[in-house]
Amino acid sequence: MLFEDFETLDVFGPVEILGRLTEHYQIDFYSEIGDTINNFHGVSIQTKKLENIINGVDIFLIPGGLGTRKEVNNISLIGIIKQIGGLSKYVLTVCTGSALLAKTGLLDNRIATSNKRAFDWVITNGENVKWIRKARWTIDDKFYTSSGVSAGMDMTLGFLTDLHGLEFAKKIAFQIEYNWQDDKSVDNFSEQ
Amino acid sequence: MLFEDFETLDVFGPVEILGRLTEHYQIDFYSEIGDTINNFHGVSIQTKKLENIINGVDIFLIPGGLGTRKEVNNISLIGIIKQIGGLSKYVLTVCTGSALLAKTGLLDNRIATSNKRAFDWVITNGENVKWIRKARWTIDDKFYTSSGVSAGMDMTLGFLTDLHGLEFAKKIAFQIEYNWQDDKSVDNFSEQ
Repeated sequence: MLFEDFETLDVFGPVEILGRLTEHYQIDFYSEIGDTINNFHGVSIQTKKLENIINGVDIFLIPGGLGTRKEVNNISLIGIIKQIGGLSKYVLTVCTGSALLAKTGLLDNRIATSNKRAFDWVITNGENVKWIRKARWTIDDKFYTSSGVSAGMDMTLGFLTDLHGLEFAKKIAFQIEYNWQDDKSVDNFSEQ
Repeated sequence: MLFEDFETLDVFGPVEILGRLTEHYQIDFYSEIGDTINNFHGVSIQTKKLENIINGVDIFLIPGGLGTRKEVNNISLIGIIKQIGGLSKYVLTVCTGSALLAKTGLLDNRIATSNKRAFDWVITNGENVKWIRKARWTIDDKFYTSSGVSAGMDMTLGFLTDLHGLEFAKKIAFQIEYNWQDDKSVDNFSEQ
């Protein structure tokens, strides 16, 4: 899912990892408006309307970025995320994307994490979420949430581990020459 | 610069890093045809024509990807890369992007590296290049070349170090919660 001023790597890190597995996954980009979505990094992506997937998808990825500050107050979008997130097989959030998911209530009584620099703001969007500040990523049933930006890649490889096994995930990390931090509890960015 | 079947992260890793520095850099996407460029990860990006920047740019980034196998034989594109690469202030390649740059002759008698799994093919595109197999990235005057995919992010942070200082680069890495491998001679993917 995209929205104006999404964070570039929140999206394209996971897209690099899942997109290359063409025998398993197909990537499609959606937004509320179903038109071209831009961000302040100069990236423009053509999207389809989220209402096309209102019955859920296999993997629903919600990125973060500056745009989340506006979208948490977009009642229409939060309603759509709740609907799609509820019916999708897996829901993955990167960075402040967890603020959007928290706002739906779907994370209530579940563990979750988010970007470290935006953490204090993120948690105001979900008072009943069991927020974990020090984590590279968290897993609670079908909900995966990661820390800031780059952590989305580590989480996605962790997600692949759960679905396809550790050797499979390691092979992908090797293919993209990525120094994967594969322990979700190790977070080098939560205490500075 | 984009072309059909570019590698997603080769582009959007560096775009995440440079694109957030809006006071220093502005990102634009170009291709030979100047139209929508697609890759097999499902990503579509609108581009302008490379001929618009034929007199060079500040930073000319050449990604890799499956598409390089075709583009090394695209004499017209190689000529354009030679022209723009020659006149640009800095030229950065990621992954097999160095095969395209090598083909122009601009890397002759210079050190360079590339994707490890494609290395034996890449070096056939530049017999006079001083190829270095074990390197996360290389620097030779204005030419920066990185290893595969994720290495482009490490190189871009190294490039920022040279232009803005180490503390500046470290700050960016911290902002995007990236475990930056900041030693360009350390390559964990060259011997497997």
